[in-house]
Amino acid sequence: MREKRISEAVVRRLPKYYACLKKLAEEGTEKVNSTALAALLRCTASQVRQDLSNFGGFGQQGYGYDVAFLRDRIRAILGLDREQGVIIIGGGRIGQALASYEGFADEGFRVLAVFDVDVSSIRVRPGVRVAHISELPDFVRDNDVEIAVIATQADAAAGAAERVTGLGIRAVWNFAPCDLKAEEGVAVENINMSESLFMLSYKYKNLSKEKGKNG
Amino acid sequence: MREKRISEAVVRRLPKYYACLKKLAEEGTEKVNSTALAALLRCTASQVRQDLSNFGGFGQQGYGYDVAFLRDRIRAILGLDREQGVIIIGGGRIGQALASYEGFADEGFRVLAVFDVDVSSIRVRPGVRVAHISELPDFVRDNDVEIAVIATQADAAAGAAERVTGLGIRAVWNFAPCDLKAEEGVAVENINMSESLFMLSYKYKNLSKEKGKNG
Repeated sequence: MREKRISEAVVRRLPKYYACLKKLAEEGTEKVNSTALAALLRCTASQVRQDLSNFGGFGQQGYGYDVAFLRDRIRAILGLDREQGVIIIGGGRIGQALASYEGFADEGFRVLAVFDVDVSSIRVRPGVRVAHISELPDFVRDNDVEIAVIATQADAAAGAAERVTGLGIRAVWNFAPCDLKAEEGVAVENINMSESLFMLSYKYKNLSKEKGKNG
Repeated sequence: MREKRISEAVVRRLPKYYACLKKLAEEGTEKVNSTALAALLRCTASQVRQDLSNFGGFGQQGYGYDVAFLRDRIRAILGLDREQGVIIIGGGRIGQALASYEGFADEGFRVLAVFDVDVSSIRVRPGVRVAHISELPDFVRDNDVEIAVIATQADAAAGAAERVTGLGIRAVWNFAPCDLKAEEGVAVENINMSESLFMLSYKYKNLSKEKGKNG
């Protein structure tokens, strides 16, 4: 079956559907209708039907969706139905936390190695290699690396991203506190924690102000 | 000076301006014009002028913006010009990484304590208290806690958020892999790492497909 072109807005919601369907399957639920799914996702049933219609007609009138089938279909659309090798550049606290996070393995992400300029204090779980950054080119040549996580300081992030893409890696997950732009032929996602925290501070400050006004 | 109501789109860009201005100030730059700022932020000079006009006329024609003044002004707008007490619910790897991340202190965020049901293996930097979750109510009563970080498993996140907001905390920063919705009078920001990683996988998969088509 050929996939229709899916809009980015729909794609952005797929991980939520996927998480929800996985949980339902783990709980033993076999069928779910759009109303129940909408309640779990806190959206409307018509939104659910419209979103899921993008991947062909999964729902059967009066029966609902087959949970395991829909979960597997979305997993495949997201590219989670195969193993993907991951390396981490930067072995600080965030890099170490990511290297040891076992949740990724469930979705086929396998952390292969952590690279840094100073490897002396990096502790990760067994099976993950810790290596000096100078070993990066050989490692990428000899292993199936699909995703590079950038967990460096802000000022080293752009250089690290150039380095990994120069070695042919085409998926970059950036945790450094400065957004990286996607170059042609490279997929990039940024997790900018500072920005999120600053936004929280802004929202909170303006809550307080409104309370002050009314109080 | 009374603040104009700033649109969310502009507010979302403020952390980027702030990061950029901080860096310029650290490097000793005193003045910056909209063209130079735009180049650093990878947007247009007219966008910069329009964004910054929201906070009153900072720029002087021909002279540019005063870096330190603008930085301090945005810091104040974001609510970063004062100390904010932070507690972390969940002492797993992410919770521990956040508890020990010293970058937050620069912006006035002070991590006071980490709470969990099992505190035996939680290691954080000196000065951060590690306590059993049952001590949470007393701690919140006796300390100035403004922000609660939720770093629990997915299925415990909503309960943890209810618990902290029930104790009067009105800012929630959620790292659990399920989005929390903002209740009336509570500021919420979600960092959903799984979603971001799944989106990366999707983008990467579709890069590969396009390459395959052309190749």
